[in-house]
Amino acid sequence: MDAARANIDTTVAVLKQQLGERLSTVAAVRERHGQDESYHAVHAPDAVVFPRTTEEVAEIVRVCAEHGTPVIPFGVGTSLEGHVAALHGGVCIDLSEMNEIVRVSAEDMDVTVQAGVRRKQLNEHLRDTGLFFPIDPGADATIGGMTATRASGTNAVRYGTMRENVLALTVVTSDGRIINTARRARKSAAGYDLTRMFVGSEGTLGVITEVTLRLYGIPEAMSAAICSFPGMNAAIDTVIGTIQMGIPVARIELLDELQMKACNLYSDLDYPEAPTLFLEFHGSEASVAEQAETVQMIATENGAGDFQWATRTEDRNRLWQARHDAAYAALALRTGAKMWATDVCVPISRLAECILETQQDISESFLMAPLVGHVGDGNFHLVFLFDPDDEREMAEVERLNERLVLRSLALDGTCTGEHGVGTGKLNYLIAEHGEAVSLMREIKKAMDPANIMNPGKIIQL
Amino acid sequence: MDAARANIDTTVAVLKQQLGERLSTVAAVRERHGQDESYHAVHAPDAVVFPRTTEEVAEIVRVCAEHGTPVIPFGVGTSLEGHVAALHGGVCIDLSEMNEIVRVSAEDMDVTVQAGVRRKQLNEHLRDTGLFFPIDPGADATIGGMTATRASGTNAVRYGTMRENVLALTVVTSDGRIINTARRARKSAAGYDLTRMFVGSEGTLGVITEVTLRLYGIPEAMSAAICSFPGMNAAIDTVIGTIQMGIPVARIELLDELQMKACNLYSDLDYPEAPTLFLEFHGSEASVAEQAETVQMIATENGAGDFQWATRTEDRNRLWQARHDAAYAALALRTGAKMWATDVCVPISRLAECILETQQDISESFLMAPLVGHVGDGNFHLVFLFDPDDEREMAEVERLNERLVLRSLALDGTCTGEHGVGTGKLNYLIAEHGEAVSLMREIKKAMDPANIMNPGKIIQL
Repeated sequence: MDAARANIDTTVAVLKQQLGERLSTVAAVRERHGQDESYHAVHAPDAVVFPRTTEEVAEIVRVCAEHGTPVIPFGVGTSLEGHVAALHGGVCIDLSEMNEIVRVSAEDMDVTVQAGVRRKQLNEHLRDTGLFFPIDPGADATIGGMTATRASGTNAVRYGTMRENVLALTVVTSDGRIINTARRARKSAAGYDLTRMFVGSEGTLGVITEVTLRLYGIPEAMSAAICSFPGMNAAIDTVIGTIQMGIPVARIELLDELQMKACNLYSDLDYPEAPTLFLEFHGSEASVAEQAETVQMIATENGAGDFQWATRTEDRNRLWQARHDAAYAALALRTGAKMWATDVCVPISRLAECILETQQDISESFLMAPLVGHVGDGNFHLVFLFDPDDEREMAEVERLNERLVLRSLALDGTCTGEHGVGTGKLNYLIAEHGEAVSLMREIKKAMDPANIMNPGKIIQL
Repeated sequence: MDAARANIDTTVAVLKQQLGERLSTVAAVRERHGQDESYHAVHAPDAVVFPRTTEEVAEIVRVCAEHGTPVIPFGVGTSLEGHVAALHGGVCIDLSEMNEIVRVSAEDMDVTVQAGVRRKQLNEHLRDTGLFFPIDPGADATIGGMTATRASGTNAVRYGTMRENVLALTVVTSDGRIINTARRARKSAAGYDLTRMFVGSEGTLGVITEVTLRLYGIPEAMSAAICSFPGMNAAIDTVIGTIQMGIPVARIELLDELQMKACNLYSDLDYPEAPTLFLEFHGSEASVAEQAETVQMIATENGAGDFQWATRTEDRNRLWQARHDAAYAALALRTGAKMWATDVCVPISRLAECILETQQDISESFLMAPLVGHVGDGNFHLVFLFDPDDEREMAEVERLNERLVLRSLALDGTCTGEHGVGTGKLNYLIAEHGEAVSLMREIKKAMDPANIMNPGKIIQL
């Protein structure tokens, strides 16, 4: 342990000489980099560095590798499962100064960005090209962070997740080499899919420094609506019907009774406090009208209330603001509470069952946990409102979360649809994948034999 | 070498005891399993086995692993880059008797099949469900083979490739363990993406025995058309315009002048012998009409001739039959010739340049090579017609193919969009990926330390 300590100190001293003010050991800076937006305990790194180029990242990793010092990549810290905690100390690589949009091709509908570029910044930049990047996990995360956690969010039902929308990556390996995982061709059958290996690897296999993304044309028409339902089954049957009809819905989001109550309180709205779908349609004017009509028909058959429409940009933004503020609205339900955000994903045929049993669990508990879901994909979230300093509450969240995860696995689902494993879901990986985890472990060992890349996340060696 | 020989003999003897008639050492059977549909030399395996369950495959691989005997998975042999050649002898696992459709879920729009199920068989089976599996590489390949080569084809521009449409796999590892790469949830952020690691791995990391696929609703309306253009640039500008407008075209296929001539001769048609697009639109009646109208407008702006439409199923089938017969039509251009089918993929902005330079090359050669392309993705094929026993012709194809590959790489493209590496593109992998090949090699070593899984393909150890 003392040797490890000495090695880290040496690493920091060497890097300080190289980076000067772009290395910080200030306690406040280190603490901010040792925590995410969820409940996980702070584990501050020993130093935070702010590189500006892939070559600088490679140099930093080489110094860390030489001394066996842990490396923790960091975007803006909006992850939710303890991904950025420096469990064994080490050097946090903050990529926020690598925020350059390297190249846009309107003809090829793709873009290359440095890993620190944020989602909203990218779409601002693209505005005049008529293109946009649809993946929207809620937070204004970095593209690098979104890639590393295989993020998705509200638009995934139509546009896919980061898995489908990353075309190529530049990565610094655990020994400080720089590799490109693919070229810009839309498809390739040339060798193992290194791109997908790094998407969702949570910094445990290398540092992602540049990302080439697929873009989409801004739709000619967009229309959004919300609609409440007499019960959860009716809402989910509407979702299943919509997907089965092949309607290319852009967003189809579910909020439960409690979450609607929270949104009403937080944003001074008066929506019915009932299971509610937030919908958005993209396409030509005619196509959007047709999609909307069909979904309205399906919803009506399931006993839905009236649709409230928003077609003007500002009205759509207001409607989606309520959805995007869901987590903050939930937090406001209980003054001083922290949130434990969890997510699972199940086959859509099992979604109603999974949600209803989960709501039953929560109704029998003394804690509150509003529910929101990207239900077109069978993915939903709970936000547990709790006091992490209260052992009884902590134990209760752990119990409810574990029941949720095991229920999802029993329904052929996954322990996390989009938040990732980090440390929070580490214990469920073997339950989900069984023997396949041994292959993941072999990959980790092959890519990072000294276990310096974000150690303690995803895979325990 | 003699020790390797003795080990293979022992393996075959042990397996013969276990499998009886489901192991063949008949020369004709072995030869048929040692070649694909392209020009590559036959390398017959020492034995061919016909397992019926994943457990039997695992047992076979365990016996092979014990004796260091190569294992070559085999579907129906429609691959094109030497994937099934038993370069070092060994046991070919023919999966054609594993042709059971295990499970269909209409609600979840997914299906699980054994690896030996063929594409057309699957769609026959699905017909009454209102669902279909769109990936169409032309050949009636097995789903296992399509997964192993990361196949795509005519529908990929809308529905993606096998990369996007495989949800989960059952795989037998190189030491004979059985793993499942994922559950049935539409998305997951739980650990490394083992599914995508095996998609496109060409049998070099393990044997795929079951595949869970994403399905789609059969569109309410489908309409197909063909349209000829005054030149290659006009055709490709139409493709780029179509994609940029966000038109969800289901198929957009390019055939060059020579290929159109071949199709006319082969199928007794009288299409103009000019660059021609074959198009298909899927959606609601209204959406299909709108898509068709918009594309017609774009094509007209680019100087296209009249569209010839096909909406009735039999008319559409006739139109696509001409496209699907393209390779046979090409072969018929030169009596007794063999085909060397190659494919590359480039960013669509570079497609015209790549195709025109390639056509120029061919026009200066003494060989013929008609061109067809899945051009919505920037992917196109050449079929060289040649006599493999003529050294001068062989050298000329090698020269033209290498120029094509290097041109594609120079344009930020890939050496193969969908055929895979096999042995045919082995030499180009480092040219394409550089340092990243070392990571592929580490993956191969980690997954298959004894190098028994389809040795000599993708990666040279």
